Amino acid sequence: MELVTNENPFKAGELLAKINSPADLRNLSEDQLEQVSNELRQYIVDLVSVKGGHFGASLGVVELTVALHYVFNTPYDQLVWDVGHQAYGHKILTGRRDNFHTNRKYKGISGFPKRSESEYDTFGVGHSSTSISGALGMAVASRHLGMNDKQHIAVIGDGSMTAGLAFEGLNHAGVENANILVVLNDNCMSIDPNVGALREYLTDITTSHTYNNVKDEVWKLLGKLSTFGKSAQDIVSKVQSAVKTSLLKQSNLFESLNFRYFGPIDGHDVVYLTKVMNDLKDIPGPKILHVITQKGKGYKFSEEGNQTIWHAPGVFNKDTGEIIKVTPKTPQPPKYQDVFGHTIVELAEKNNKIMGVTPAMPSGCSLNIMMKAMPDRAFDVGIAEQHAVTFSAGLATQGLIPFCNIYSSFMQRAYDQVIHDVALQNLHVVLCLDRGGLVGADGPTHHGVYDIAYFRCIPKMVVSSPMDESELRNLMYTAQLPENALPFSIRYPRGNGVMVNWKTPFQKIEIGKGRKLKDGNDLAILTFGPIGNTAKTAIEKAEAEGLSVAHYDMRFAKPIDEEMLHEVFAKFSKVITIEDGCIIGGVGSAVIEFMSDHGYNAQVKRLGIPDEYIEHGEPAELWAECGFDEAGILKSITELYQEKKQVLIKKAL
Amino acid sequence: MELVTNENPFKAGELLAKINSPADLRNLSEDQLEQVSNELRQYIVDLVSVKGGHFGASLGVVELTVALHYVFNTPYDQLVWDVGHQAYGHKILTGRRDNFHTNRKYKGISGFPKRSESEYDTFGVGHSSTSISGALGMAVASRHLGMNDKQHIAVIGDGSMTAGLAFEGLNHAGVENANILVVLNDNCMSIDPNVGALREYLTDITTSHTYNNVKDEVWKLLGKLSTFGKSAQDIVSKVQSAVKTSLLKQSNLFESLNFRYFGPIDGHDVVYLTKVMNDLKDIPGPKILHVITQKGKGYKFSEEGNQTIWHAPGVFNKDTGEIIKVTPKTPQPPKYQDVFGHTIVELAEKNNKIMGVTPAMPSGCSLNIMMKAMPDRAFDVGIAEQHAVTFSAGLATQGLIPFCNIYSSFMQRAYDQVIHDVALQNLHVVLCLDRGGLVGADGPTHHGVYDIAYFRCIPKMVVSSPMDESELRNLMYTAQLPENALPFSIRYPRGNGVMVNWKTPFQKIEIGKGRKLKDGNDLAILTFGPIGNTAKTAIEKAEAEGLSVAHYDMRFAKPIDEEMLHEVFAKFSKVITIEDGCIIGGVGSAVIEFMSDHGYNAQVKRLGIPDEYIEHGEPAELWAECGFDEAGILKSITELYQEKKQVLIKKAL
Repeated sequence: MELVTNENPFKAGELLAKINSPADLRNLSEDQLEQVSNELRQYIVDLVSVKGGHFGASLGVVELTVALHYVFNTPYDQLVWDVGHQAYGHKILTGRRDNFHTNRKYKGISGFPKRSESEYDTFGVGHSSTSISGALGMAVASRHLGMNDKQHIAVIGDGSMTAGLAFEGLNHAGVENANILVVLNDNCMSIDPNVGALREYLTDITTSHTYNNVKDEVWKLLGKLSTFGKSAQDIVSKVQSAVKTSLLKQSNLFESLNFRYFGPIDGHDVVYLTKVMNDLKDIPGPKILHVITQKGKGYKFSEEGNQTIWHAPGVFNKDTGEIIKVTPKTPQPPKYQDVFGHTIVELAEKNNKIMGVTPAMPSGCSLNIMMKAMPDRAFDVGIAEQHAVTFSAGLATQGLIPFCNIYSSFMQRAYDQVIHDVALQNLHVVLCLDRGGLVGADGPTHHGVYDIAYFRCIPKMVVSSPMDESELRNLMYTAQLPENALPFSIRYPRGNGVMVNWKTPFQKIEIGKGRKLKDGNDLAILTFGPIGNTAKTAIEKAEAEGLSVAHYDMRFAKPIDEEMLHEVFAKFSKVITIEDGCIIGGVGSAVIEFMSDHGYNAQVKRLGIPDEYIEHGEPAELWAECGFDEAGILKSITELYQEKKQVLIKKAL
Repeated sequence: MELVTNENPFKAGELLAKINSPADLRNLSEDQLEQVSNELRQYIVDLVSVKGGHFGASLGVVELTVALHYVFNTPYDQLVWDVGHQAYGHKILTGRRDNFHTNRKYKGISGFPKRSESEYDTFGVGHSSTSISGALGMAVASRHLGMNDKQHIAVIGDGSMTAGLAFEGLNHAGVENANILVVLNDNCMSIDPNVGALREYLTDITTSHTYNNVKDEVWKLLGKLSTFGKSAQDIVSKVQSAVKTSLLKQSNLFESLNFRYFGPIDGHDVVYLTKVMNDLKDIPGPKILHVITQKGKGYKFSEEGNQTIWHAPGVFNKDTGEIIKVTPKTPQPPKYQDVFGHTIVELAEKNNKIMGVTPAMPSGCSLNIMMKAMPDRAFDVGIAEQHAVTFSAGLATQGLIPFCNIYSSFMQRAYDQVIHDVALQNLHVVLCLDRGGLVGADGPTHHGVYDIAYFRCIPKMVVSSPMDESELRNLMYTAQLPENALPFSIRYPRGNGVMVNWKTPFQKIEIGKGRKLKDGNDLAILTFGPIGNTAKTAIEKAEAEGLSVAHYDMRFAKPIDEEMLHEVFAKFSKVITIEDGCIIGGVGSAVIEFMSDHGYNAQVKRLGIPDEYIEHGEPAELWAECGFDEAGILKSITELYQEKKQVLIKKAL
């Protein structure tokens, strides 16, 4: 498989230019590997500095990537990248070099490994911590199919290793005698610095005398003691035996789980990496190779700079390391995440019960603002969505009010905890779903598509979404009021809002109450969340053409505003619902459930994300594809209006 | 809080009879604790042998329960039971003794700890592995609230410890200096024997010289070596230092995660347990106490018998240990789970690609039949729903066809894995959802309520349910056909089917095709799954009264049978949909979504589980409560029919 376009503006180095598949890489001699690595790194710097994308993670695994494809017989051997935002080097080496400048663009290369894109992408990723389970499934399948020479490698970061799924995979792999190598890519980071006890443990085994060295040293010293004569020898032998059978066997967390542990080794010494991996090929069963890497390695500014910023810095000047930010001349509306971040601090200053919780997304959801202002009351619990929610439930049992902020698509991982630990117990936990709706360049793994549908079916759960910054503040304010002590979810999108002066005074919102933004006669539009702003401009254009369109902001998908809906259906026979979420089971469905339950007969057109996977691209491109950008909404308005006119004409005749 | 009824037919022993709260227990002297434990055990045997319920787990923690309430100041100190089916002793000691014979009965005591039932039930449970996260939340809250004397104890089984959520909780607890004690109740069992590398590790540290003993022994031996003179002493000191700083520090999996580890100790020595726990009270930070217990302890027949059977044996003769099974005189329909268990073996014998996967429910879902027949092709992966699904996805990438069987309510825990690893990659994984619908005595944590709604919104996912055993077989057959290589879910309920001769020949079903079971004129009923059989008898009764009711078996909630629905809505203005699942977003919603999209205007009454939590009780009691038992369906039919008659009369006038 070779993807080529003639338009590739990036020039690869001498060796890299000739590598169109890993087979070409494997034709090089060992002493050329460092040069290839350097060229690969340079290619990534050249490209990402101009085109944007994930940066630090891919730079950190350049040598690892080269070594893996050099040693293993990909794609026959199965290589699984965890999360996958570090797989740029992998993509460039596997036939996608000259197409890689389309990375993360609409219809271009995906920012993550993807089975449909290449046979080298063995497992589609995006969410973390799936690689061990996936690779173990592959290894067990190979065993079943008699392919005993086949290798299965999961490359997983130390951050991803904290998620429960990774542990479940290790626990199972430890008792399957299947051929799996876990490469623990230890760079001390998720997107933000990695946290938790496992992180401290990995630092311990890395910074203290290494594990194997200590073993060697103890044996050597005990050997010396043996020279003190026969009775000393007897005792030494007993010590050896005691240490060996009980201590050493249990002396490493991964060996406790039946993995053979190797390392830690330097992840930037490409030749040494190939040697170690070659040795590991012949060792059967579950193995873990602990590799120390540095995020942003090999590029001065990312090496020395803030790792969180260099995770995905956007466009930058590769020579100066200056991250290029177009500063608008006039003040701009803030990101919704920052409205959350500042508002929770503001509320927490007044309400001592408020706590903040994030699973490894402090900078992504802006809880870092509270972590800085109130370090005792804001928690980054690591990549651990399940724990984040159940931990929040525990806080709530003691009368506290946790705001647990999890991206919509990651909340899928805490679904049982929301039902079983929060909602069923009717606990006062505020679930803030950032990245609700289509997120853009990250694509289908990260689009927040399903949350309205999967939360709406949970009894007692409040499902809300603000149309703008002020509404977000008011919903957060409302959610923490003592009279609203129930499971309360607030979803809002990635990106910027619409209000420059967003720091409005708090106003209580009645739960389950929408609002009529404008009246109209021809048809009604019901929106949920910030997509209401797009609808607003579409309505303005429609009215400029002479139509009269009412606009209602639902504000709550649950409980739904029945009074408002009675008003709508009493007056309108044509209704459009719009949401940045799946059409099946979403707000539009709530509206037609209401309509059906109350015997109304309006024609309802539901706009939202259709029942298919939406790929990556600019949000505007994706909204257009789904038919709920301004033009799409206008089209739906016009169509319904035309239909209505036809009906009226027919009736008149 | 004291719950009393006058009808308690069970007599407590002398000491137990006086314990109406843990305060009474704490008034006893240490040397009375064994007697109390024996009386508590006897009370459980007396009661469960007559009333049924969970047995082995509660018997195994009798001494632990007594010790915990004796040492800790409950309910001020927060005691969290993981899973909770072992909490019978806890309930009996905390004011619910004389009401405990209503355990698991409709409107009676819940089989699990439940916050609304008692202040001693600090955290509602049912699903496993939530206790560490919950207790950590409580501990952090107490720290925030300045209650530094407050203790927080999570009692978790070794089986529950394998779930990712438990690991996530440990990883966070290890870096919070909060006051949390994890009691690892190690009985080597989930419901079935526990599996996985962690299990082997726990056996290692229990059966080998214990950890602390070895430490002591090494120190003692090294001490002896010191007698060989000054230079020997120097070497010994170096050995000690090396062993101490690097090996011992890492010599226990839990200590690797910053927990202080104590044990293993005998969980049936109640006095020793109290002594150890008293000591632990004064040690700050995260601690783990490893307690060895035996499931079914202290009752001859459960001690010696099969632990899986004695987990919840039903009614038994307490003197002979005979489990009382009413053997019907005529052959009965099988359980759906057994139809699954036998059918997968039958299919796997013909199709070498089929594999079986269960997360710790081999006997619950009957995959144990395949595990016995084909041990290399059926996997119990431990309590690890997330891993079960992603592991299945890994198998599917290699062309295998895993049948992954997970109870509906537990599938909530693998929701992200279904979306992200299976559906988005369009992999050929067959997800079998046992326990779909109301499950009965286990109550709201275990009811399979949401799966239709939460699966229906996932693109590419097939959502099906068989009406009877033959249909289940046909759906399983259909799901594994190579032309149906897509994510395919099949949900079926707990309990028995309707066919005595269920082993029918396989027939392929066209995906997305329902079936008309009978024609009618007055109204149409659309059912999904085995609830169709209840509808059938209701329809027969309605027709005996002169009504004419059509009956359609939807078979697929997705893709929905549009052709069939066009037929329905072209003919009928009154339609009832029935499903054993949540009304919001379920099959009924799919039907009205279709109706709305195609401009039909029928009156649709959706029967199903209403938007509230349904408590425990006999399934028939719960169906009646929800209005979709036979009487409820009949009532809905009659009401719609009357309305229709009214409309017709009005029109005629």
